[in-house]
Amino acid sequence: MKRYLQVDDIGDLKQALKDAFEIKQNPYAFKQLGENKTIILVFFNSSLRTRLSTQKAAMNMGMNVMVLDINKDGWKLESEMGVVMDGDKPEHIKEAVPVIGQYCDMIGVRSFATFESKDDDYSEKVINQFIQYSGVPVISLESATRHPLQAFADLITIEEHKQKERPKVVLTWAPHPRALPQAVANSFAEWMKKAEVDFVITHPKGYELANEFAEGASIEYDQRKAFKDADFIYAKNWSSFNNYGKVLSQDKDWTVDEEKMALTNGAKFMHCLPVRRNMIVSDGVIESKNSIVVQQAANRVVSAQTVIKRMLEGL
Amino acid sequence: MKRYLQVDDIGDLKQALKDAFEIKQNPYAFKQLGENKTIILVFFNSSLRTRLSTQKAAMNMGMNVMVLDINKDGWKLESEMGVVMDGDKPEHIKEAVPVIGQYCDMIGVRSFATFESKDDDYSEKVINQFIQYSGVPVISLESATRHPLQAFADLITIEEHKQKERPKVVLTWAPHPRALPQAVANSFAEWMKKAEVDFVITHPKGYELANEFAEGASIEYDQRKAFKDADFIYAKNWSSFNNYGKVLSQDKDWTVDEEKMALTNGAKFMHCLPVRRNMIVSDGVIESKNSIVVQQAANRVVSAQTVIKRMLEGL
Amino acid sequence: MKRYLQVDDIGDLKQALKDAFEIKQNPYAFKQLGENKTIILVFFNSSLRTRLSTQKAAMNMGMNVMVLDINKDGWKLESEMGVVMDGDKPEHIKEAVPVIGQYCDMIGVRSFATFESKDDDYSEKVINQFIQYSGVPVISLESATRHPLQAFADLITIEEHKQKERPKVVLTWAPHPRALPQAVANSFAEWMKKAEVDFVITHPKGYELANEFAEGASIEYDQRKAFKDADFIYAKNWSSFNNYGKVLSQDKDWTVDEEKMALTNGAKFMHCLPVRRNMIVSDGVIESKNSIVVQQAANRVVSAQTVIKRMLEGL
Repeated sequence: MKRYLQVDDIGDLKQALKDAFEIKQNPYAFKQLGENKTIILVFFNSSLRTRLSTQKAAMNMGMNVMVLDINKDGWKLESEMGVVMDGDKPEHIKEAVPVIGQYCDMIGVRSFATFESKDDDYSEKVINQFIQYSGVPVISLESATRHPLQAFADLITIEEHKQKERPKVVLTWAPHPRALPQAVANSFAEWMKKAEVDFVITHPKGYELANEFAEGASIEYDQRKAFKDADFIYAKNWSSFNNYGKVLSQDKDWTVDEEKMALTNGAKFMHCLPVRRNMIVSDGVIESKNSIVVQQAANRVVSAQTVIKRMLEGL
Repeated sequence: MKRYLQVDDIGDLKQALKDAFEIKQNPYAFKQLGENKTIILVFFNSSLRTRLSTQKAAMNMGMNVMVLDINKDGWKLESEMGVVMDGDKPEHIKEAVPVIGQYCDMIGVRSFATFESKDDDYSEKVINQFIQYSGVPVISLESATRHPLQAFADLITIEEHKQKERPKVVLTWAPHPRALPQAVANSFAEWMKKAEVDFVITHPKGYELANEFAEGASIEYDQRKAFKDADFIYAKNWSSFNNYGKVLSQDKDWTVDEEKMALTNGAKFMHCLPVRRNMIVSDGVIESKNSIVVQQAANRVVSAQTVIKRMLEGL
Repeated sequence: MKRYLQVDDIGDLKQALKDAFEIKQNPYAFKQLGENKTIILVFFNSSLRTRLSTQKAAMNMGMNVMVLDINKDGWKLESEMGVVMDGDKPEHIKEAVPVIGQYCDMIGVRSFATFESKDDDYSEKVINQFIQYSGVPVISLESATRHPLQAFADLITIEEHKQKERPKVVLTWAPHPRALPQAVANSFAEWMKKAEVDFVITHPKGYELANEFAEGASIEYDQRKAFKDADFIYAKNWSSFNNYGKVLSQDKDWTVDEEKMALTNGAKFMHCLPVRRNMIVSDGVIESKNSIVVQQAANRVVSAQTVIKRMLEGL
């Protein structure tokens, strides 16, 4: 495995799950694979879960880990070609990335959508430069349009908690005070469409995801109708794709609360975290016994370690 | 050992000292205990000694270490219950803490007094949330009211340098330009009262420590009188407890200088560092052969390692 | 080896190169040397290559590594003697440095020229305080006047790429929007004068390096004349030494471009990075097959590891 950006990079999901549960059972069984191997985690943005869980996963594999908050520790990076670099960015990504690649066997990169340009974001400009120039395998720690370690952890969590062969999984938009990327929703949709689930997306009009992600999922604009008989409710805010990066609604009628959860089939509540209480979800729901957000976050180690193991095997 | 916040958590001080000297003698003898174990050090505040010495202690024990400057690396944390999270804090401590607990076997937390609320500070609101929600053992790296790794290091240092069975130890307030927490003074008092020493606290009126810490110590408002025959002078600034968080005096007559040290029984000079020269202590005293501040800081590794070892044994 | 600040600290360059190539060949062969040994990397300034390559080098040697961004993680340090510390710097370097020394076996320090005082910078005030007070070996990760790990990596790179016994190596000044230290140019000059090369420095009038560095090198004010028959072009900006810290020129006629490279003997292009494209060097030159800036950066691991290995052997 040379890159991990999207669902297709992991191949067969059943096999991926099998590998993941083997690792979860026995996290230190593969330490010799990572001996004398180094991963660098490059952050353009803040991170709590991703930072810690990916470090933990790499250490479980016996690797050395270096963490780089690139804009704070290093130099601001220019990514445009052909510019005269006389401004505030002293280093070009075309130098920085191959150099980072020289110091490690694997790179993880977090680089959120900036909303400056839909084309730049949806062409995955930054992470693709890491793939193109680094010379080593690249793991997305959330890119502009996808968050594949999260989606893999989500799948693992659903597999662990499902009560029936083919559960109903609902991705619901929920309100948030700021404009957020579509990455988590995109990846979750991408994964759920390939998984053994009935998948429904619900959101207000105007919040349609990009075609490549929404296509093939059931879209339901009535949140209550969508929740009916659901086994898993996955809440997440995202900003508009069509009206790119805009907040069209902060309607708290979309907040996930006890009354709406009562419409479900005793659904488990999921969210990738961080979550804003009483915007996305009520205190009552997130603190209920059906909330599995912490178990979901714990599986971030498992998804990361499964991906790292495959990459190590492919070196 | 499931928590390390205060003197009672360490049990018998003689046994603690015995364990500490065993570790100091042979710091790498217990590396197998920490194999495949991870500690996360969470900093809400700046740190030099605590950051480095606790990392070193954990590495000496063979552990993996992750350091999280939570407000810089992660997300600002909300700690109030029941709020609508539509402001600048995107994550609640009730999610963040259990998640961090999923990624490690042990957490160290530094969270200073904020002086916003005496009740919040003295109820140890933040570190108690880590104890309540993390699911793993918690070590205080200085909380709102105590600094127990410092106090343990102080005790070790006194034990190493004492010339008589029962030395006289004086904690003296000294001036400082800003409002500092009472944590170091509180913990030092808590430990000295249980140690085999004659313990005196000296400070200007208005700087009385909280009852639970001051009670049982000799209080002497005349600094020069307090210094008489002292074997150890421990200098520290703190802000007022009664007039909570206020700087009542910056009187340089309280600065520890050569003239006052001459009143002692050739006392050793101690301070937890960082120290403001010529406010807390004169250049001459801190550079004298009787200054043991560096040895004291070195013992921070020993106290941390002793605590970590006990926690590892209790996992 | 107790310190690594300048070319003389490495001794015979041929032996140094021999050691370096042995390490490059077999980077993990000496891991037992670093067992239970710790290096602390202290950064007063930003760093990408130095931060990552020195960490990697130390991990290759089996060491524990701690990284300290001292002004962000720790406390701002006072370095003046005799001051009343009532301002914004709560810790004195005379306490901080010996304490750091207690927590490790070796310190790396990055502390750039501040341009506040030519005397302070050229007397290497900060790094000399680390040498004087830490009690452990000190490696320069770029000091006010020198960057010796870079210069050693440069020498290794030239050795690997040279086509003739005694190549012609040209250090050329090039324009930059801000005032940069002379450290890289100084160290490169210091090393090249001792290496088996013909060494020429070219720069506009007013950009003469300090005597101790320039003396013995050929100085040529006509850049095109200097480039004639060159085998290596090493570009770098620096601010004026005589008119200390001033930017006297931003003349783009000094930018290294294809037309000027055509004057050379098919010279390799070198730069320490980060490099400002189309100021220092054209896109065409830095992306050409003769550009060896990435290989040069990769050798930063080799130079650092060679130095660390010698220090470990000397402990």
